[in-house]
Order: sequence, then C-alpha cells, then structure tokens
Amino acid sequence: MNSTIETLLNHRSIRKFTEQPISEDTLTTILDCGIAASSSSFIQCTSVIRITEPDARQQLAIFAGNQPYVATAAEFLVFCIDFHRHQQINPEAQLGYTEQTLIGAVDTALMAQNCLVAAESLALGGVYIGGIRNNPAKVAELLRLPDHVMPLFGLCLGYPAQNPEPKPRLPQSLVIHQEHYQAEFNHQALAEYDDKVSNYYRTRTGGKKDTTWSQQITETLNKEARPFMQRFIRNKGFSTR
Amino acid sequence: MNSTIETLLNHRSIRKFTEQPISEDTLTTILDCGIAASSSSFIQCTSVIRITEPDARQQLAIFAGNQPYVATAAEFLVFCIDFHRHQQINPEAQLGYTEQTLIGAVDTALMAQNCLVAAESLALGGVYIGGIRNNPAKVAELLRLPDHVMPLFGLCLGYPAQNPEPKPRLPQSLVIHQEHYQAEFNHQALAEYDDKVSNYYRTRTGGKKDTTWSQQITETLNKEARPFMQRFIRNKGFSTR
Repeated sequence: MNSTIETLLNHRSIRKFTEQPISEDTLTTILDCGIAASSSSFIQCTSVIRITEPDARQQLAIFAGNQPYVATAAEFLVFCIDFHRHQQINPEAQLGYTEQTLIGAVDTALMAQNCLVAAESLALGGVYIGGIRNNPAKVAELLRLPDHVMPLFGLCLGYPAQNPEPKPRLPQSLVIHQEHYQAEFNHQALAEYDDKVSNYYRTRTGGKKDTTWSQQITETLNKEARPFMQRFIRNKGFSTR
Repeated sequence: MNSTIETLLNHRSIRKFTEQPISEDTLTTILDCGIAASSSSFIQCTSVIRITEPDARQQLAIFAGNQPYVATAAEFLVFCIDFHRHQQINPEAQLGYTEQTLIGAVDTALMAQNCLVAAESLALGGVYIGGIRNNPAKVAELLRLPDHVMPLFGLCLGYPAQNPEPKPRLPQSLVIHQEHYQAEFNHQALAEYDDKVSNYYRTRTGGKKDTTWSQQITETLNKEARPFMQRFIRNKGFSTR
C-alpha cells in the first residue's frame, strides 16, 4: 500500500468546501496531470473550460439541477469533447462518427480522473457534475461552445469542509469476470452488497434512509434518462453516423 | 510535488513487458482502486473481463489489429459498459438511451484510469487497447457479452521492459479555456507544439519519422472512423434512442 493507492481507495465525493482558494500553481499542476493521461491515437480531443465568474457559476449550478457547490467550490471546470480544434486544423476532417463520441467520452474521462486524483493527493476534494447534462444546450450557449464541442461533465474542486466515509462499491465478485462474461448472476453477492449499502445509508441518515443498491438503480432506471441527449449531441455534430 | 503527481506526470504507454507475472494480491488491489472511482448516480455500469487463456489472448491481439502485447502482457483486461446487470435486477429497466452510453463510457474510463494509475504507482506499466473496437462483434462473441454489454477498450498491464520518455502533450494554452471557449485559435502555440512533437519523433526514430501533431491528426481524420460502430452499439442495445 503506497500513498497513491491510499488516495485512490479513500475517494469520496466532496460537496462542501472551505473558502480557501486553490493556488494558480496547484491548479496548473492538476491540469498538467490531466493532460498527461492517455489519448486514443494521440487525438487529444478534450477541452476544459474554467469558470470563475460568480454569475456564470450561479447559472451553471441551476442548469445542473440546483447543485449549490457548483457555485461555491474553489474551482469549477467543465470537461468537453472537442473536435472543433481538429476541424480548424483540417477543415476536411471527417467528423460525426459514433466512434469519435466514444473516443471523446473515454479520453475526456481519463483526463478528468487524473485531475481529480492529483487534487485528492494534494488534500483537495471534488465531485463530478454529470448534472450539467440536464441542460446541455444552455451550458453550451453560456460557454459559447462551437459545433463539434459538447459539454460532458463538470468537476468541482476545493478544500473539503466535510469528511464523509467512502460509499461501499459493488464487490469484485459482481464486477470482475474471468475469461467470459459470467452467465450465472451471483444473487448472494448482490444480497450482501444490498445490505451493506442499506446499512451505509442508515448510519449516515440516522435511520431515515435505508435504500439498497438494487432499489436505487431500479428506481433510477424506471425513469427515462435525459431523452433529449441523442438530439442534442447530433445537433452539435456528434454521432450523426 | 508528491509521488502521486510524479506518477501521473510520468505516464507513458508501455508495450513491452517482462515475463514477471502480477501477483493476485496486486491485481486485487489494482481492481479495488478501479472500483473505488466515482460513478454517475451510483449506477456502477462497468464490468471487467480478465483474460488469461493464451488462445483467447492471441485472438484478441489479432482482433485489435495485430497488437502482440495484448497476448504477451502479464494481464489483459477488457473494460465493458454493462447494463445487463441492471436489467437482471430490474427487467423493466428503460435502457438504450444515448445518455446511458455517455454515462457508461465516462464511468468505465474513470474506473480504468484508477486501475492504470494504481498499477503505475506499483512500478507496473500499461497501455489502453482501443483497437478491440476494430472488431467489436468478434470481441463480444469471444467474451460472450450479452445484450446491453459492450466492449469499450482493453488494458494491458505488466512489468515494463522498456522505458520510453513521456510523449509531449498539447499545452494548457490550447486545452484550457477561461470562462468561454476561446474563439481565437492560438496558431503560435500550435506551431510550437508541432515542432515539439516532430522533434520527439525525430529523436525516437533516429530521424526516420518527423510528423507534427497537426499532420498526424489530419491524416487520421481524413479517414473514416470505425463506421460500423453506430450499428454495432445499437445491436447491443445502446444509443437506440
């Protein structure tokens, strides 16, 4: 167990921050770590928009479904898939392939995760804001994103003003398969995990919430999932073919 | 600068490995680090298939476009977006949303990057294998992936038998934007970066290759990008709406 492993295993999302700013040097280091991540075929199709204007932050907090920490975190970064840069370099670039959306989402997430891990190693905390995809067109307009650029998620960073315990994750027996996808579903492992999650919530809420993971995902997946997303990304020039 | 930051900044893909195996304990730790990553709305929609059978490895190396290290690395993991698990728990789950493909790609990449960072902190090296998307249907068949599971990328891990220098990445001036997407393209920063990349290749190849980044992405994007991907993922139940 080294300090990197410790940082990774100790991850929990931080949503309350002190007022301490992140120094420019520290932010530069964090972003350098992000940029150092792998890139599929060296394509480097991510852009990051750093938002500091309080009004814009406030608007983004609302667009994200009223998540106040988007406004209050020391830093808020919006990670975007960006093929506009490539189109400026090569106006004949063949864009719009579904494959490019996958590359973009993967590479952008690799970069962001490096930023978050770097930040956590420096005693900062953070939380991803997928909620900006509640209102992707409004976010894109506010950030003046041209075609072939789409906002993927935000990242709040700052010095933690809370210390939650890590949330229990699915056990390896349900996530890791050997040689092939396991045909037999491991019901016992799921039941044990459901108990663990329910205990976690019960402890954190003083008994008010005791949802299992199965209940939670059932509820989530009984609803539609941002059904406007297919049209939005096509309008931006993604996954049109 | 702490050791985590050092690990992150020192990243380079490793494609040559010694024969030293990765101990089961170490692999378990690496996978635990992966599972500890953030998950959008706690949905946890990733499965990892660990391939050890030499025949299967050989086939995957071919499917990936003849990348021999897929067969020779100590470990080869295939990272998949997995909503089949959710469907087993909730047969009424509303699946097929483009949004869920984005969540899946992002969360799967976050998990994988934690695995790679953990491995690198333990003196291992690795390389992502997007090449498995050259033949996604064959990969899915070999790994017996049911509907609502798609292979996203592979990851080779092992003890490095090479020590390449990190590849120069786009500078922050081209990747990080302040408040809005920068309307003015920074041609000078690109020219400087192109020089850097061309020097990097010249040094590494003894003068045989001196492509700039602009040339490289122009060539890549003048070709179609896995045009079968849209149909493949729809057949698997992704991005149908």
